[in-house]
Amino acid sequence: MNDFESIVAELTETLASTGAASVLRDSEALIKYQRDMGALEDPHLPLAVVLAESVSDVQNTLRWASKHRISVVPRGAGTGVSGAAHAIECCMVLSLELMNRIIEVRPDDEIAVVEPGVVNADLNAAVAQYGLMYAPDPASYQQSTIGGNVSTNAGGLRCAKYGVTRDSVLGLTVVMADGTIIETGKQTFKGVAGYDLTSLVIGSEGTLGIVVSATVRLRYLSKNQRAIAAIFPDIETAAQGVLEIGRARIQPAILELLDDGVMAVIDSIHGTQLQGTGGALLLALTDGFGALLEEQAIRDQLSKLGATLFEPDDPQAMKLLEMRRVSRGDEQDDVYRVGEDVAVPRSKLVDYVHELRLIAERHKVWVRTVAHAGDGNLHPTFWIDPAEGEAGLTRLERALDDSIRSALAIGGTITGEHGVGQYKLRWLGWEQSEQVRELQYKIKEVFDPQGILNPGKAI
Amino acid sequence: MNDFESIVAELTETLASTGAASVLRDSEALIKYQRDMGALEDPHLPLAVVLAESVSDVQNTLRWASKHRISVVPRGAGTGVSGAAHAIECCMVLSLELMNRIIEVRPDDEIAVVEPGVVNADLNAAVAQYGLMYAPDPASYQQSTIGGNVSTNAGGLRCAKYGVTRDSVLGLTVVMADGTIIETGKQTFKGVAGYDLTSLVIGSEGTLGIVVSATVRLRYLSKNQRAIAAIFPDIETAAQGVLEIGRARIQPAILELLDDGVMAVIDSIHGTQLQGTGGALLLALTDGFGALLEEQAIRDQLSKLGATLFEPDDPQAMKLLEMRRVSRGDEQDDVYRVGEDVAVPRSKLVDYVHELRLIAERHKVWVRTVAHAGDGNLHPTFWIDPAEGEAGLTRLERALDDSIRSALAIGGTITGEHGVGQYKLRWLGWEQSEQVRELQYKIKEVFDPQGILNPGKAI
Ligand SMILES: Cc1cc2nc3c(=O)[nH]c(=O)nc-3n(C[C@H](O)[C@H](O)[C@H](O)COP(=O)(O)OP(=O)(O)OC[C@H]3O[C@@H](n4cnc5c(N)ncnc54)[C@H](O)[C@@H]3O)c2cc1C
Ligand SMILES: Cc1cc2nc3c(=O)[nH]c(=O)nc-3n(C[C@H](O)[C@H](O)[C@H](O)COP(=O)(O)OP(=O)(O)OC[C@H]3O[C@@H](n4cnc5c(N)ncnc54)[C@H](O)[C@@H]3O)c2cc1C
Repeated sequence: MNDFESIVAELTETLASTGAASVLRDSEALIKYQRDMGALEDPHLPLAVVLAESVSDVQNTLRWASKHRISVVPRGAGTGVSGAAHAIECCMVLSLELMNRIIEVRPDDEIAVVEPGVVNADLNAAVAQYGLMYAPDPASYQQSTIGGNVSTNAGGLRCAKYGVTRDSVLGLTVVMADGTIIETGKQTFKGVAGYDLTSLVIGSEGTLGIVVSATVRLRYLSKNQRAIAAIFPDIETAAQGVLEIGRARIQPAILELLDDGVMAVIDSIHGTQLQGTGGALLLALTDGFGALLEEQAIRDQLSKLGATLFEPDDPQAMKLLEMRRVSRGDEQDDVYRVGEDVAVPRSKLVDYVHELRLIAERHKVWVRTVAHAGDGNLHPTFWIDPAEGEAGLTRLERALDDSIRSALAIGGTITGEHGVGQYKLRWLGWEQSEQVRELQYKIKEVFDPQGILNPGKAI
Repeated sequence: MNDFESIVAELTETLASTGAASVLRDSEALIKYQRDMGALEDPHLPLAVVLAESVSDVQNTLRWASKHRISVVPRGAGTGVSGAAHAIECCMVLSLELMNRIIEVRPDDEIAVVEPGVVNADLNAAVAQYGLMYAPDPASYQQSTIGGNVSTNAGGLRCAKYGVTRDSVLGLTVVMADGTIIETGKQTFKGVAGYDLTSLVIGSEGTLGIVVSATVRLRYLSKNQRAIAAIFPDIETAAQGVLEIGRARIQPAILELLDDGVMAVIDSIHGTQLQGTGGALLLALTDGFGALLEEQAIRDQLSKLGATLFEPDDPQAMKLLEMRRVSRGDEQDDVYRVGEDVAVPRSKLVDYVHELRLIAERHKVWVRTVAHAGDGNLHPTFWIDPAEGEAGLTRLERALDDSIRSALAIGGTITGEHGVGQYKLRWLGWEQSEQVRELQYKIKEVFDPQGILNPGKAI
């Protein structure tokens, strides 16, 4: 560690001479930057935290890290829930949160160029005046950063209609492991020159490079937004509602499914009185020129299934959507309570929500489920009473394993939007073949030959 | 070449013992499979053509090619216009056109699984009965294959609203250079397990692997389709119309711009009488629940600019759209007539269409332009009289260079959708840095260490 003192002094000096970045070493900072919001199984404190303020800060940090072969864990807001931003042994945390300038908004081009630390909600606030929005809106949109969203390929609520982060990113500026800079992609809506390095970096969880700016495509922010809220007797029928909306070929902007457990959580946070009204709540938003007609068509489908619908102009429906939009129920996972994130083919939604209940019963654990149902992306949260200790943990593990296995068995994926991080590495081999994993390691090696960028994550 | 005789005999035997693939060697076949529809500057006949009928045919061909280090040029329908499917020295052409089964359509999941040789239009015909469509529709959709569309990341008309090929592909099965098979991506709408190998293969023009099946996402085929046709005095004002539709935040499904030269071509093919009615034609399609309202809003914007609009229910508007949908004017490029394919930021459309005319004047060449204008993607075709010979060719080259340079100068790209192929390699270094190109070579090496897959193309 003495060695490390002089090495860190070298970094501090370089950064001081060229930029404004701070290097934090106090234990409060080390603890704060130790983890994201995913379950923490193998805690490590970082050796230090760099708060970068400019591209050259990032370059200098990476050059230094390359020279001394020190691992770097990039970090946005730390709202990830897969441990992708957890500190690992002998690492630096490189926080991009202070690089939060919106560099350019070009309303006629319908694009914006932003630094990675810009908070998703701030970008949306800045472009709304032009009738535009940055569509991907993870429920963490009031905290999470565009850099983090890009690096996890974040989804969100409006993705049902507008797609995930990848569908809104045109180009990136990336600092490579050795401190060099590349530009990927383009500033136009379309472009096919060379390989799609942009998509490769998107979702790579900080293992291929540091995103220091993103050119994003903006979409039209509709003034016609119609919210629909429907209570169902049980979650299976609510899931059937999702299917019927699809069968009627109606594309809502948002389509969220909440079971009675999540309804209870919303009650406890917001003082609503959902619990006891039914077994599940389906929330939809239609927008654009067709909003009213789509609203009516959705209402028709759900009525046929026996749902109890809020009145068409009841402001409570929009309020419920907002409550869902700003929360996933739990903020930080711990080992006793784990939020899952599988996606399944749409036709399998009904079976799968049913299966989740059976799994919980079988292993005597609790489960509640919220879903970006329009995309077939489910977030069951499984938990046990921490007082149970090891015995409970074993049952929890089995339930989690079963939920993943069942999703894969029906053509699903182990992660719809949260990423693999650290936590889901255990299941990656269930989804990907050895050849694919081998290929990914080799690609990682091309970008980061020394393996200093967020090692042990994502792949 | 004697050597080659015994090597080919080995391939023919293997293929005969395990599958139904034919190996063609007759000169008619070699000539037919020598080229795609791009300009041909450096003609080579392939040594032989394999018509694969199964995945194992593809694997056997690749194993054999790896063993003998023979280059393989994959091929769909050969409608590419950048020479990406042109034969190169001492190569095999591997045609996927006979692998044309639609393996599965899953209407409730809104996905289809297809072999690479399925023609785009055939897939659309098969899913229409379910109220679904495969959205990306290059103007070649009646000939081009899904495998070719995937490998070029093809765009098309409906991309204005529904995105390009990448936005509709969920997963791929790929045969690697050594004959092994990998599955990339997922069968769900969302999924972020590992790196995005699917996007990496999409648009890679057969240089990373052979696509032997694709899982595609289908979109809702709207019964409400409204066509709008507007004649403008000049192309600059028509381009302004595109901008105003965007400023009004209206998202048509299709938005195509045709100048007077292209209007004349349509007249000559279809017997219409567009020429003389104005300097440019703007064609739009609205669809979905908002189609009527969007139609009205677009008409309002274009009227304000002084356009002459076809009446709202005039069937001619839809017919004009169909004429555009099935053609790019010219089928096959030659060295005297080259179709370009730049994309520019939307706000620059007006300036750029004006600039194209100036460039043509300056170099005394002809130009006519058609554009997927909603995406800022333009196809100017430059040509000279072949009788002019070398002197004309030099001027043509300069005009082409200038058109590319001007597009790049305003933040555009050298290729919006046609790909780099062989023809556009000359300009790739104008757009991409040395580092990016180096990175792409290294990625290529990971997938194809011997460099046998379509060498000299794309990157
Ligand atoms: C309440 C709540 C609701 C949520 N809802 C959703 C949801 O609806 N959809 C969804 O997809 N996720 C959701 N999440 C998960 C999380 O918010 C997203 O993954 C988000 O994208 C993370 O952004 P961040 O800025 O917090 O990144 P962090 O958590 O700090 O980092 C995430 C990953 O990206 C890397 N990284 C961060 N910045 C950079 C950069 N500039 N360059 C390179 N790598 C970088 C990190 O190393 C890490 O691997 C939710 C989380 C919470 C707590
Ligand atoms: C009239 C006309 C209109 C056009 N309009 C458009 C348009 O609107 N938008 C657009 O984007 N393009 C357009 N094009 C260009 C062309 O049609 C597209 O690039 C199309 O995607 C090519 O498909 P294909 O099956 O003909 O592929 P090919 O031309 O045979 O091959 C294209 C590339 O893909 C590779 N390839 C083919 N199949 C496979 C496979 N299974 N695995 C791996 N590699 C493979 C080839 O090696 C080559 O590099 C047009 C062309 C014409 C002639």
